[in-house]
Amino acid sequence: MTSVTSLPPRAMSMTPLLALCEQRLAAAVSGHAEQVVGPAAATLAAGGKRVRPLLVFCAAPRAALADPAAGRHLLSAAAAVELVHMATLVHDDLLDGATMRRGRPTVAESHGAERAVCTGDYLFARAFGELTRTGSARAVGALAAAALDISQGELDQQRAAFDLSLTEEAYLARCRRKTAALFSVACRLGAMVGGAGREAEERLAAFGENVGMAFQIFDDILDLAGAPEATGKRRGTDLCDGTVTLPVILAMRLEPSLREDVAGACQGPGLEALCDRLAAHPGLAGARRRALGFVATARAAIEDGLVDGATTDALLEIADGVVDRYS
Amino acid sequence: MTSVTSLPPRAMSMTPLLALCEQRLAAAVSGHAEQVVGPAAATLAAGGKRVRPLLVFCAAPRAALADPAAGRHLLSAAAAVELVHMATLVHDDLLDGATMRRGRPTVAESHGAERAVCTGDYLFARAFGELTRTGSARAVGALAAAALDISQGELDQQRAAFDLSLTEEAYLARCRRKTAALFSVACRLGAMVGGAGREAEERLAAFGENVGMAFQIFDDILDLAGAPEATGKRRGTDLCDGTVTLPVILAMRLEPSLREDVAGACQGPGLEALCDRLAAHPGLAGARRRALGFVATARAAIEDGLVDGATTDALLEIADGVVDRYS
Repeated sequence: MTSVTSLPPRAMSMTPLLALCEQRLAAAVSGHAEQVVGPAAATLAAGGKRVRPLLVFCAAPRAALADPAAGRHLLSAAAAVELVHMATLVHDDLLDGATMRRGRPTVAESHGAERAVCTGDYLFARAFGELTRTGSARAVGALAAAALDISQGELDQQRAAFDLSLTEEAYLARCRRKTAALFSVACRLGAMVGGAGREAEERLAAFGENVGMAFQIFDDILDLAGAPEATGKRRGTDLCDGTVTLPVILAMRLEPSLREDVAGACQGPGLEALCDRLAAHPGLAGARRRALGFVATARAAIEDGLVDGATTDALLEIADGVVDRYS
Repeated sequence: MTSVTSLPPRAMSMTPLLALCEQRLAAAVSGHAEQVVGPAAATLAAGGKRVRPLLVFCAAPRAALADPAAGRHLLSAAAAVELVHMATLVHDDLLDGATMRRGRPTVAESHGAERAVCTGDYLFARAFGELTRTGSARAVGALAAAALDISQGELDQQRAAFDLSLTEEAYLARCRRKTAALFSVACRLGAMVGGAGREAEERLAAFGENVGMAFQIFDDILDLAGAPEATGKRRGTDLCDGTVTLPVILAMRLEPSLREDVAGACQGPGLEALCDRLAAHPGLAGARRRALGFVATARAAIEDGLVDGATTDALLEIADGVVDRYS
């Protein structure tokens, strides 16, 4: 999958823009008191794939990327989307009681819950401040709508914790809010701020949404089947948190007796064995097929060349890379 | 002090606008899943003085209030400012471990920390979505800057918890961020969205900032000297939370031996007695004089009639009402 240091080949032209985006992010968390800068800068330094800024740049018309004024606005949009992502990570880790992220202690773990709440709020406010620099209220409205979706998605997840009767539909609705909304708005902002037409904007937003769905489903697959050294977290975290995911839903549908083992996943020593079992289960293969279906839908939204100068080949490569990361 | 049902006499003309603002706020927390609507609606229903929306309306040029299009934008600005205020209350109550607000259990108390984090995030996102309806990126930028100040002010407060050597300057800097920034932006948005000139906008922003300073100092006085039946919370809450406030700073400066009693305020049975002592202390009178000084500075910013058709007489009345509330 994409990272600042290992971009998919067709996105290599975005390297300088991503480097500028890193500078913009660093500036966004500097110049303030240490108690803010510390946790926020650590969240930033922990890195990440920066796939959302990359989507902003690849969705923008190439002509806009080359234009100094439009380029600056696209940088603001890219930084804003990543700042919202960072804010939600800080709050989510607090809510989930996560102690590690990307091999480092989370803000909640190292600085306490109070700082985690404030650091997230700070990053949210910074995101909106950054996007305001584009001068586009419509852009800010789109990001605010995505932020609203994310907060609702997180609430959906809390409400459904340990609910083993969660339906596939409810799971997908949660993914749409929690993850796909931000992927979608990243692509939408690239088009909008870059001055593409409304048709291109809607297609790119649909592309981003479907990539986001595939991304989340595959993330949930990795929770069961991913090697900890590749994912940076131990397997079965979702099972222990009571987050019921698609591979588990599909496995329990095919084999109802699994319910009992899933319900007791974190009470006994059998977590590793259960992950092994679910990783080899046809339910997981089914979830992977669903993810590939979303990738195909994403591709279809932009493949016909109607997206006004966007870097389509790189977008298609990103979509393909979302499934089967770390393999 | 102002409330929706008991406005200062010269602000009575704002009653219909405040009623529309209530509708706008109610709409902002409806139409979503119950787990959001519940806590957010309860926060809304708990009421409050709505002093920030009132400042938006009073700071706006009267001509804008009468114009249907400008009036709608001012309503969005008023609702947005109150939504940010509500968001910060939900998060602050969580951070402070507060169990009651305005005679009701806080969101954190009744729904848990997770819901409180998400409900606050939801209200923040709603605020920016609402303000986007004005079509003014500059307005959104101003609110984002205030939100940033608030998050830093809260971090300042956490860092300084139980620090009895907190200086008056550090206290005032915290008030400026935590409270005055939102009062200031409320007035600024009234002027900006209502189409007043930049000179009027800056003067009204300065007015709001100084009113906010006086408001916070008087709030801190009420923590020591306010009757619980009027304030809705027991005395000495700040002392127990380790929030060192101006009346306490000034009292300890005049009588250094008080330090020891303040340090042990929540360990023994002497909290009521300490509140009595601080309430009668010359340090508290000094804090009240500082608050009145900010009111005078606020008045001076707008008294010369250079504020482009704003409802100045009501603003002056609000400024005067900020000190000696509940007396």
